[in-house]
Amino acid sequence: MRHYEKIEALARRVHHLQHLQAITGWDEAVMMPEGGGEARAAALAELNVLIHETYSQPQVAEWIEGARAELEGADPWKKANLREFERTWRQQTCLPSDFVQARTLAVMRGEQAWRGMRGKNDWQGFRPLLEENFRLARQEGALRAEASGLQPYDALLDLYEPGVRADSLTRTFSDLEGFLPEFIAAVREKQADEKFLPTRGKFPIERQRALGLELMGKVGFDFQHGRLDVSHHPFCGGVPADVRITTRYREDDFSQSMMGVLHETGHAKYEQNLPATWRTQPVGLARGMGVHESQSLFLEMQVARSREFLEFAAPFIEKHLGAGAEDAVALRADNLFSIFTRVKPGYIRVDADEVTYPCHVILRFKLERALISGDLKVKDLPDAWDAGMRASLGLSTGDNHKDGCMQDVHWAGGAIGYFPSYTLGALIAAQLMAALEKEIPNVRKDFAAGEFGGMNDWLRRRVWSQGSFFTTDDLLRQATGATLSTEAYKNHVRRRYLDS
Amino acid sequence: MRHYEKIEALARRVHHLQHLQAITGWDEAVMMPEGGGEARAAALAELNVLIHETYSQPQVAEWIEGARAELEGADPWKKANLREFERTWRQQTCLPSDFVQARTLAVMRGEQAWRGMRGKNDWQGFRPLLEENFRLARQEGALRAEASGLQPYDALLDLYEPGVRADSLTRTFSDLEGFLPEFIAAVREKQADEKFLPTRGKFPIERQRALGLELMGKVGFDFQHGRLDVSHHPFCGGVPADVRITTRYREDDFSQSMMGVLHETGHAKYEQNLPATWRTQPVGLARGMGVHESQSLFLEMQVARSREFLEFAAPFIEKHLGAGAEDAVALRADNLFSIFTRVKPGYIRVDADEVTYPCHVILRFKLERALISGDLKVKDLPDAWDAGMRASLGLSTGDNHKDGCMQDVHWAGGAIGYFPSYTLGALIAAQLMAALEKEIPNVRKDFAAGEFGGMNDWLRRRVWSQGSFFTTDDLLRQATGATLSTEAYKNHVRRRYLDS
Repeated sequence: MRHYEKIEALARRVHHLQHLQAITGWDEAVMMPEGGGEARAAALAELNVLIHETYSQPQVAEWIEGARAELEGADPWKKANLREFERTWRQQTCLPSDFVQARTLAVMRGEQAWRGMRGKNDWQGFRPLLEENFRLARQEGALRAEASGLQPYDALLDLYEPGVRADSLTRTFSDLEGFLPEFIAAVREKQADEKFLPTRGKFPIERQRALGLELMGKVGFDFQHGRLDVSHHPFCGGVPADVRITTRYREDDFSQSMMGVLHETGHAKYEQNLPATWRTQPVGLARGMGVHESQSLFLEMQVARSREFLEFAAPFIEKHLGAGAEDAVALRADNLFSIFTRVKPGYIRVDADEVTYPCHVILRFKLERALISGDLKVKDLPDAWDAGMRASLGLSTGDNHKDGCMQDVHWAGGAIGYFPSYTLGALIAAQLMAALEKEIPNVRKDFAAGEFGGMNDWLRRRVWSQGSFFTTDDLLRQATGATLSTEAYKNHVRRRYLDS
Repeated sequence: MRHYEKIEALARRVHHLQHLQAITGWDEAVMMPEGGGEARAAALAELNVLIHETYSQPQVAEWIEGARAELEGADPWKKANLREFERTWRQQTCLPSDFVQARTLAVMRGEQAWRGMRGKNDWQGFRPLLEENFRLARQEGALRAEASGLQPYDALLDLYEPGVRADSLTRTFSDLEGFLPEFIAAVREKQADEKFLPTRGKFPIERQRALGLELMGKVGFDFQHGRLDVSHHPFCGGVPADVRITTRYREDDFSQSMMGVLHETGHAKYEQNLPATWRTQPVGLARGMGVHESQSLFLEMQVARSREFLEFAAPFIEKHLGAGAEDAVALRADNLFSIFTRVKPGYIRVDADEVTYPCHVILRFKLERALISGDLKVKDLPDAWDAGMRASLGLSTGDNHKDGCMQDVHWAGGAIGYFPSYTLGALIAAQLMAALEKEIPNVRKDFAAGEFGGMNDWLRRRVWSQGSFFTTDDLLRQATGATLSTEAYKNHVRRRYLDS
């Protein structure tokens, strides 16, 4: 096993370096004073170079070949580990390092500029930076395509969603496009007559934080191995032994921080429960961004926005926030359910409900695919965006770029091929919930009773503890008996939004 | 300059890695949940190995030789940089890596055990670990002695105090031993009649923090490049662009957190004002632990405990903490001066006043030197400690090991040769203050008026911006016109404790 062992040792080194990257990355977003940014960026860039160098040692190709021979008939986890290592190694080494450096710079510049320009709706200023990002992304797609034999956009997708291809995404998304417009209209009609009270009041941040911490604990976040903090953009970072989730607070509205904390807790529980014995190895990592998002959406959409969960949560909300509410009735479970399941087309993806959300993702998927293929030019993006929004959600963005094609950090930060994961996650979450309900028919009653052990055990067994042992397809088949489809999602939203 | 440039590139890489080390080290003490400890230790150990490997590349010796030739007649800062690089490189590479690993393990084990055993006064449990630490320290001393031509203890000292030797320390410390006993007795006699009010009250942590932040800002801490947090043991960490200081709070006593914050602010200002153009290079680092400690003690002992500073600070103390004090009179400058200059022999080094403090250091210096030479055995340490404390401070520790030889983390954590820096720092601070007063005769009046610009400009010019350009001796000569002596310290304590 001498080749395989060398691969494990190399992976272990990279894992430890990525630990430092994760914690200092969290620190940058949560703790760092502004003046520390330049030195931090330089330190992290050096670490990236070092990781790239570590993968690029000329002996590694030989180790992989040698390990493949050594592992014939051996432990399937080791085989899966070699497969995952090789995938990452190919992704890391197929780009020349001067290209990586140029891209890192462009991406940092794009993201920093975006922060200032979005607020000013400065499309003319932002456009050249976005053009440069897409120029480099097309180049990256071509380089990755050459190394992998995939189409360029597929090669970018594969970074976030191993095994997923644009063609299958197109089929899945077309299916949703056939379903959503009529469904959204039906829900809007039904909800038009519904009365509910807004949760107006003054909810001190410390109390919202206490509520978040209590709910996190109830649903199974392990505080021995993680913490909750504040950042401008909520995220889940850190390492499995020490998961850092963040949120942001508004004093006049607790609903965003409450659901935000539960969303990130879903990510965190996945990380905290990845297979401990494989923690330093690629097979011990989360399966991909779609599966990761499925875990946050499982907790937020499937569980926390259910009537049952809100019945469980209402007394805690009352305990922590009741004193600040203008009208205590607004904090009752029924009213909260109305608030948390309101469907309303809007401009902003991150504020969208779970029914209109896929429309935002599908638009971005089509546009970025066309931008990579060259069928669309960056200069024509605002018009294409406007047309897409009008077609899918009946909203025109016009020259409101900041709420249009400038609203997300992803393209500014060079993350092209990422958006589909959000909707894949929503579909997977619904499919997992359907499977869980088959296995534990009373699981929704458990939610109402604050019992999450059965749900967590099932997820731990079926998803979390599997790390990257299976491909995404096989993971889903193993957990739900079927590969990805839109059925469970459609059933879920029908039941929640029309039947209930 | 091709060899010299390779050295700068190597140093730059190490600098960036040490940035990650510093921030994750701060995180470990301030933010990390307990369960993250094992993974963090493994990640940091890997980073140490990587830094060791980086220095140990076989070409480096050749680069150093080549660079030396290239730099003849060149920029003296580059020459000093090469000198500092070579010193660090020799320190890093003269130990075989299996020894480094064994020592790292023993030191971690010793420090972890100490945390639990000190509280239980468990000398019998702690002794074998300390024996192992000193066994390895003797081995390390021998290896370093072989590489450097120094005596073993001197080779350990040199890690913290480049250029300082045990023989010169012995002369300096003997001088203090000739002065202190009589002086302490005289101060005690004078203070016996002094009346002062203890600052009793309830001082909420948030208010103490606000006071600390305000005073930090007034004396010149740059919040664009640093922050203040809480940790169990106060320290100054981070990197020059992002300095992290910590303190701890007691609700019934603000004096410790206030002076603690100012002490760490002294360290922080040194770091924040190191020469920016040399930030990634060894010559851009602080000169050594003694000079570093001189900066914290300058601010704490020379400035903040002066009558003038306390006149300036009293209104801020009143503003933030007045509401919590049992007796507002206790917060007046005169009373605070009495509190902050009280001299009283005690068991604990970290709680000692500036007059009895050197006695604690001298005892440790003598004992660790004898433990390294073999003249003293670890098993005889408690008796030797007791005898030393009785001789210098008239206190017997007996079997009270937790307040005796088990009180400090240093030996448990393998830091042997560190203690002298505390007293060197006190002597340097006094010498710098005397030189500053010669140059700006009214500087103490400035303190009373809250004007610290003149003082900071002088320190910036004379100390901070010099980095490691000079040796410690030359730095002192350049700043004060003389090399290290005890005169300024003796004059300072005479003036403060007997004449005022």
